[in-house]
Amino acid sequence: MERNPVVDLLLSRKSIRRFTDEDPSDEIVEAIVRCGQQAPFAAQLASFILSKDREKNPFGAPLLFTILVDIHRLERMMARRGWTRISSDGAVLIFGIQDAAYAAENMVIAAESFGMGSCFLGAAPFRAEGIVQEARLPEHVFPLVQLAIGYPAEDPPPRPRFPLDFSLFEDRYPALDDDTVDVAMAKMDDGYLAQDYYRSAGYMIPLEAGREESFSFDDYSWTEHMGRKWGQWLRDPNDVLGSLGACGFDLEADRSKGSD
Amino acid sequence: MERNPVVDLLLSRKSIRRFTDEDPSDEIVEAIVRCGQQAPFAAQLASFILSKDREKNPFGAPLLFTILVDIHRLERMMARRGWTRISSDGAVLIFGIQDAAYAAENMVIAAESFGMGSCFLGAAPFRAEGIVQEARLPEHVFPLVQLAIGYPAEDPPPRPRFPLDFSLFEDRYPALDDDTVDVAMAKMDDGYLAQDYYRSAGYMIPLEAGREESFSFDDYSWTEHMGRKWGQWLRDPNDVLGSLGACGFDLEADRSKGSD
Repeated sequence: MERNPVVDLLLSRKSIRRFTDEDPSDEIVEAIVRCGQQAPFAAQLASFILSKDREKNPFGAPLLFTILVDIHRLERMMARRGWTRISSDGAVLIFGIQDAAYAAENMVIAAESFGMGSCFLGAAPFRAEGIVQEARLPEHVFPLVQLAIGYPAEDPPPRPRFPLDFSLFEDRYPALDDDTVDVAMAKMDDGYLAQDYYRSAGYMIPLEAGREESFSFDDYSWTEHMGRKWGQWLRDPNDVLGSLGACGFDLEADRSKGSD
Repeated sequence: MERNPVVDLLLSRKSIRRFTDEDPSDEIVEAIVRCGQQAPFAAQLASFILSKDREKNPFGAPLLFTILVDIHRLERMMARRGWTRISSDGAVLIFGIQDAAYAAENMVIAAESFGMGSCFLGAAPFRAEGIVQEARLPEHVFPLVQLAIGYPAEDPPPRPRFPLDFSLFEDRYPALDDDTVDVAMAKMDDGYLAQDYYRSAGYMIPLEAGREESFSFDDYSWTEHMGRKWGQWLRDPNDVLGSLGACGFDLEADRSKGSD
């Protein structure tokens, strides 16, 4: 693999959940946000709410960005030019989520470049209604994710990833036989175990519905964690649809027919 | 604003749609993909199909990555551990789209660091069914976006962005009065006009439904372009839902009830 300082920075990134008391300067905050803005876009459908309230921010981070999929600004601009949006909510969301995510990842990288660390908080879409009220979001603005940023007070190693050939396929998607899956799983599990990740966190996802625990921190690792998460949690399809609804989005509505 | 070489790289990025004949080495391709893999994740829900077929790739790019939201691998891993996914399709998609987008943006940045340029192609979600067939995608894999990468044969300037205070809000979302919207629109429109962006492209979105053209390349700019796009196109709500369906996703299905 070819390396350079930017590649090294991207490969060394890991989530940081402990921060020092140091506050970033306004000039650094501006650079982080400008880098987010400059990300590739379909229609500049990203905006950001910033909280500097360490008391409230997760991990006491000096910066908490709520990354918004912002269709409101687009609609305001369109109205100024005599246009009404008729593109479906699904269409603007699929582009808007990308605009917001590309911006957020640029902010992660910019923060790293200033020696800061970050952690994404993925729960925002599942408590959208509360965020809408707290941040007074107008209609058609969806909180996609939150991003805590600060100077790191911990220095964990980068976390493992799948083998390259489990993620990169040439021309077509291959059949993934059991051996291939097992090799990829072992790389993840061995890697997290070698870093004592779950033991250090002191956390296993509890088993529900009378299942009996057979794991300890000696063998509980990433793939079991994933199994317990996606095998037990977030089962209600109305969670995401309801949150979108709380932000005024209806994936089935035909906007070209007008609202009345 | 504070600057450093990484910030400069992020701020100078622009879409490239003309590429030289030079092919990147395998070592550079590996670095680009490894940087994508190392992006923050919820569950490593991104994978990539790579085409090196310049004849087929848009803009004759040496590399075309189709960025996949890949729930298939997760389900294969879960099955190996005796788990079945019950998290809703909406839940895995909202995390999976982010995983895929963070990875894709890291690939954009890594490519830039090697002096390469890139362009996102956003149509993939609207022709998912065709991509599923061409790339033989298994169930629960969704093509989010495509990313053309190569050595640039053009050097356009970075494109304008909204004023910072139109994108960054402290603590809560403000009321955006007409003056504020107009200032943001003028920055975008004046910026694109100063770069002769649409005149160089030779393209205005045609007006539908008997609307009469009143713009020329002297005044047609970004906000009018956005109005025509989102005011005329992508109106069928079944486009995105149908594409998700072609990939086996049903946002309303309750997966905890089993499939039979």
